[in-house]
Amino acid sequence: MKSVIGKNITLALYGESHGDAIGIVVDGLPAGIKINTDFIARQLDMRKPKGKISTQRREGDQFTITSGVFNGYTCGTPLHITIPNTAHKSADYQPNLPRPSHADYAAHIKYNGFEDYRGGGHFSGRLTAPIVAAGAIAIDILKNKGITIGTHIKKCQHITDRDFENCAVDIALCNSKYFATLDETVGKQMQQHIETVGADCDSVGGVLETCVLGMPAGVGEPYFNSVESVLSQYLFSIGGIKGVQFGKGFGFADCLGSEANDAFEMCGDKVITKTNHNGGINGGITNGMPLVFRVAVKPTPSIFRQQDTVDLAAMENAKLTITGRHDPAIFHRARVVVDSLTALALLDMLVQHFGERWLCG
Amino acid sequence: MKSVIGKNITLALYGESHGDAIGIVVDGLPAGIKINTDFIARQLDMRKPKGKISTQRREGDQFTITSGVFNGYTCGTPLHITIPNTAHKSADYQPNLPRPSHADYAAHIKYNGFEDYRGGGHFSGRLTAPIVAAGAIAIDILKNKGITIGTHIKKCQHITDRDFENCAVDIALCNSKYFATLDETVGKQMQQHIETVGADCDSVGGVLETCVLGMPAGVGEPYFNSVESVLSQYLFSIGGIKGVQFGKGFGFADCLGSEANDAFEMCGDKVITKTNHNGGINGGITNGMPLVFRVAVKPTPSIFRQQDTVDLAAMENAKLTITGRHDPAIFHRARVVVDSLTALALLDMLVQHFGERWLCG
Amino acid sequence: MKSVIGKNITLALYGESHGDAIGIVVDGLPAGIKINTDFIARQLDMRKPKGKISTQRREGDQFTITSGVFNGYTCGTPLHITIPNTAHKSADYQPNLPRPSHADYAAHIKYNGFEDYRGGGHFSGRLTAPIVAAGAIAIDILKNKGITIGTHIKKCQHITDRDFENCAVDIALCNSKYFATLDETVGKQMQQHIETVGADCDSVGGVLETCVLGMPAGVGEPYFNSVESVLSQYLFSIGGIKGVQFGKGFGFADCLGSEANDAFEMCGDKVITKTNHNGGINGGITNGMPLVFRVAVKPTPSIFRQQDTVDLAAMENAKLTITGRHDPAIFHRARVVVDSLTALALLDMLVQHFGERWLCG
Amino acid sequence: MKSVIGKNITLALYGESHGDAIGIVVDGLPAGIKINTDFIARQLDMRKPKGKISTQRREGDQFTITSGVFNGYTCGTPLHITIPNTAHKSADYQPNLPRPSHADYAAHIKYNGFEDYRGGGHFSGRLTAPIVAAGAIAIDILKNKGITIGTHIKKCQHITDRDFENCAVDIALCNSKYFATLDETVGKQMQQHIETVGADCDSVGGVLETCVLGMPAGVGEPYFNSVESVLSQYLFSIGGIKGVQFGKGFGFADCLGSEANDAFEMCGDKVITKTNHNGGINGGITNGMPLVFRVAVKPTPSIFRQQDTVDLAAMENAKLTITGRHDPAIFHRARVVVDSLTALALLDMLVQHFGERWLCG
Repeated sequence: MKSVIGKNITLALYGESHGDAIGIVVDGLPAGIKINTDFIARQLDMRKPKGKISTQRREGDQFTITSGVFNGYTCGTPLHITIPNTAHKSADYQPNLPRPSHADYAAHIKYNGFEDYRGGGHFSGRLTAPIVAAGAIAIDILKNKGITIGTHIKKCQHITDRDFENCAVDIALCNSKYFATLDETVGKQMQQHIETVGADCDSVGGVLETCVLGMPAGVGEPYFNSVESVLSQYLFSIGGIKGVQFGKGFGFADCLGSEANDAFEMCGDKVITKTNHNGGINGGITNGMPLVFRVAVKPTPSIFRQQDTVDLAAMENAKLTITGRHDPAIFHRARVVVDSLTALALLDMLVQHFGERWLCG
Repeated sequence: MKSVIGKNITLALYGESHGDAIGIVVDGLPAGIKINTDFIARQLDMRKPKGKISTQRREGDQFTITSGVFNGYTCGTPLHITIPNTAHKSADYQPNLPRPSHADYAAHIKYNGFEDYRGGGHFSGRLTAPIVAAGAIAIDILKNKGITIGTHIKKCQHITDRDFENCAVDIALCNSKYFATLDETVGKQMQQHIETVGADCDSVGGVLETCVLGMPAGVGEPYFNSVESVLSQYLFSIGGIKGVQFGKGFGFADCLGSEANDAFEMCGDKVITKTNHNGGINGGITNGMPLVFRVAVKPTPSIFRQQDTVDLAAMENAKLTITGRHDPAIFHRARVVVDSLTALALLDMLVQHFGERWLCG
Repeated sequence: MKSVIGKNITLALYGESHGDAIGIVVDGLPAGIKINTDFIARQLDMRKPKGKISTQRREGDQFTITSGVFNGYTCGTPLHITIPNTAHKSADYQPNLPRPSHADYAAHIKYNGFEDYRGGGHFSGRLTAPIVAAGAIAIDILKNKGITIGTHIKKCQHITDRDFENCAVDIALCNSKYFATLDETVGKQMQQHIETVGADCDSVGGVLETCVLGMPAGVGEPYFNSVESVLSQYLFSIGGIKGVQFGKGFGFADCLGSEANDAFEMCGDKVITKTNHNGGINGGITNGMPLVFRVAVKPTPSIFRQQDTVDLAAMENAKLTITGRHDPAIFHRARVVVDSLTALALLDMLVQHFGERWLCG
Repeated sequence: MKSVIGKNITLALYGESHGDAIGIVVDGLPAGIKINTDFIARQLDMRKPKGKISTQRREGDQFTITSGVFNGYTCGTPLHITIPNTAHKSADYQPNLPRPSHADYAAHIKYNGFEDYRGGGHFSGRLTAPIVAAGAIAIDILKNKGITIGTHIKKCQHITDRDFENCAVDIALCNSKYFATLDETVGKQMQQHIETVGADCDSVGGVLETCVLGMPAGVGEPYFNSVESVLSQYLFSIGGIKGVQFGKGFGFADCLGSEANDAFEMCGDKVITKTNHNGGINGGITNGMPLVFRVAVKPTPSIFRQQDTVDLAAMENAKLTITGRHDPAIFHRARVVVDSLTALALLDMLVQHFGERWLCG
């Protein structure tokens, strides 16, 4: 189990940046789910680099579903999505000069020099395309069960977006935008900032914030399969994510218990909490409030400035100037990947709780 | 797989706070490892509540290893550790009034009212005792392979400890203390603060920082089983941990790529990085630098002030004043649990890479 | 995952024959299931050696459930059953002389000489006691869902029992007996034969046949998690089982397709098959007919005759005469273990299909 | 985990008989293994229908490896093999008339009528093609570690082949033949018999026997992951296999312990057994002797005679005459699938024991 995850809905991811094709097998989707290929295409489009704030490598991302769908519905057996690689330029990569903060050196050691170094190989951000395709199916299933997911760019250096307020409206707002901020002006400032940083041959990091509305209470497990444990395992599989926090997260360290606790109250015949500092999770289990969590995305390590590195053939210090096509920021594109992995993780937990039949009920 | 985790070294945790016994099965330890029962006892002692800054429930934590050890060495078959519960007072708990920010309500929904509500049942912090016992074995094995782990209290509200500097020395320093700060004065300030807060019937959160020295490069996997994914799954299983970040973590959002990248350089015949902003992990795989990560611990939800809640029998708003014995802070006790889960997670990944024979080599 | 199995209902087995205690953690049972401790005790009694046809080691098998049960019902968290060892006599075992066809030698190599050799250690048939205790809970749950399981001794050397005829009646008949044959006279002949063989310091093997009535159609998976794949993984975990076959099994090799196929027909508004040569499974999935399968149990390897072996210390040929207390046959005791593992395997597959809530519905 | 298996070397199988493509992801192969595409092609050729004894559907089985291989060697990341379907004729299948002893009816219930019924969909024997391609890689790796696998047709109705005698020679003999009997004359008799049966619109079953030479002692686990448990899980995933036995298997029921036990003796400085009734496995763990096991293959359920079935739309009795292209026997083609799954299962267990580095050592 390396590039495989999921107990009930199992994903097997494959591919390298400059290989023939990348893809994913999704095993465990019950039969009878209508597949919305337009939505898959739309989500892939949301992940694509666009404008000056992204890499100039532009892939068509023409996905094909080669199995698991019959007459437009899942037939209960593994669904396989494949996407060809077409626009790669392998000449841009130097195998002996590991790029700082990329996987190159760690992969070189792990794979004894047999790694496919071209474009980062399996570690390439391109591998998030099949994840987004699979995630689109999961998002669609959850939507039919009344569960919606939205992610916005909470922060890019000194520029910060407002918090979620009206969850339903704000989730819809996130999902309507390519560069997803809740405040439109903030979004323009961030994009301008990314352009400026990119023009300076540099890159920039950020924080994404996700809200999930409609999760029933009682899903998840104590300890090792807590909602936090499972979601973080999925989320940390995105290259560049270096932090995950739920509710107030690291902000809890500044709190007293009397400030941090979420008091219960009745809302009609429903139990809710007056605040949601815990992000909808108590003891590893959903409590019926919206899930709220944030992830930290580090600046893209590919920058166009000369950097210090080592020559792995000569085993001596060296200089590296990265060429090729790279993103000055990736968090705006990572946003849809976060939604996808969130949906896939929640789907697995929901099936555990309600059984696979529930999904198509 | 609910209270079970681990692919090569599998843990199965059981027990409730007020049941007869709690325990853990550790399956997958290779034969021939000397079991240091003194060290297990010492680690359990480090987890125990002490002084005024902890709960007054004082358990002996007399552990028994009933299988898997023969003549003082692991015999290769599952090791079972059991710890009796002796000091519980069930009368302190009211099943119909869920404590805010505790698992009570979520568990009530999940388990349809059949949950063992006494002392939080399976969700009790007491369950970390068998984790610490199992973790002590893992820590000991890693130590024999040159891998050491230390965790200090980085932050308690406004009071902050210094960062790790000389890792080897600082790890030893952490492990020598019950209240583990690197700066002794800071530690006293924090303890005083906890006492003050506790005296005010309140509780307080904090941040722990962990350093792992000696991890070989090349361990971990891309994507779903990245070191970050696996460690976070283990770490988020601790009740009260609501954030995990690696290296600069959320601080990356304030950085440019040129500030965040860790340049490589030769150090003798070894490749190192000049900085360690990535906390020893690139692309989900160790790069040979120290692992550094932080976890956010929320304030103990059990506070002695009247709180708003609901009555689950009457389904109406209610007031709750918690009685019994509770901790005004738990991060100083959680520290050894973090070390334990870290060791167990790393052990699993190391066995994956090197094979089980390596452990006893 | 060594002595751990199960995706939804996970078992972690531990213990050695001459250790303090043996036990099992059952993780994944949903909350709200009434635990019938009398039935657990009865099933353990069915596994116990009795009379002259069994070992004279007589253990009380006093089980304790230390967690997972609250007020007589499962509370949704891991259930732990422990059974003390009381009647062991370690002096009977010689570590350097591996007993032919026992695990001794293979374990010695696997565990590098650190194995607990006393009484076969973890490999002892005693470890089936916790399996039977866990299985009793599973059998009870299935019974409440209309699914019943029965196993009889189909064959002991030249003596054969009749096949299942009226499944419901015959399953009840099996479960009412300690020495379970459908034909009472055949049962007496077999017991007499075992006594005779035992008196001759020898042992004897047999075939068990199991019938499961009431399994709904549509449970199981194609390929790697077919009902046959999952059941055989559970069944082959019993020491001494060396063959598993479904329906006609090896008898299919003597058949033409026209003789082997199970034609469909309507029975009221239900689809059934006219014959059941496939033992209730097509394509790895239940078809609604009774599950029927057989397991081959080898003769107990512990016989009281002098045997050739090697001395693992001197690495030279040696003679061994086994002393102590051993069974001249085990299949009559293994029968209840087969039922238990069958129930646990089916439970896991049923939860996968219907969800955990179904169990307590 | 449905069409997914394997802990260290994980397989994810996908595809339907009449879909665009079938394939498999193999996750966990270490980097640096030379991929022998000629051998993969040769093994696929061994699985292909040939002559009058097989179906007339003739697929090219042109496989493509789209990831995981770089410059002819595994690069450590998931290997994906895809094979297009080209020669399907969907018109031959009637969705409402389930074929007796096929998966049709069970799949119809499981998948609520959404199953891809064309050519058996995911249940088709065609899915064994990617298994054979993946297995070829595993067989090749094992060969480089001195472990060889061979399977012959032990029995086809009344015609029986001789047993393995000189394992090394006989394994080579099996692998040199398309219709693998050890005795050439017996092979011709069987082929003649299959032709005769096929001409009579019928089909025939058989028994395959496998020998694995070179397995080191000490591999496998007690209980749930015994070599028997793991191998049988893999082997029973082949459609049509209804029995698996190790060593004497069901023949043990006719034995006394004194006849069945395998006495140890020294052979130079190596411990061997004088006989191998246990098929190389004691207590679930290899003992260093050749692994020997048999599988029962039922007659192909597709026969060209009119059969009784039901109409699932009308829910009434019906008659079915199967048309299209089918095999009068499949065991001679299943032989290479058995070798493939055996290699994949053993590889997983060996990596568990020796670590992934061992494979490329």
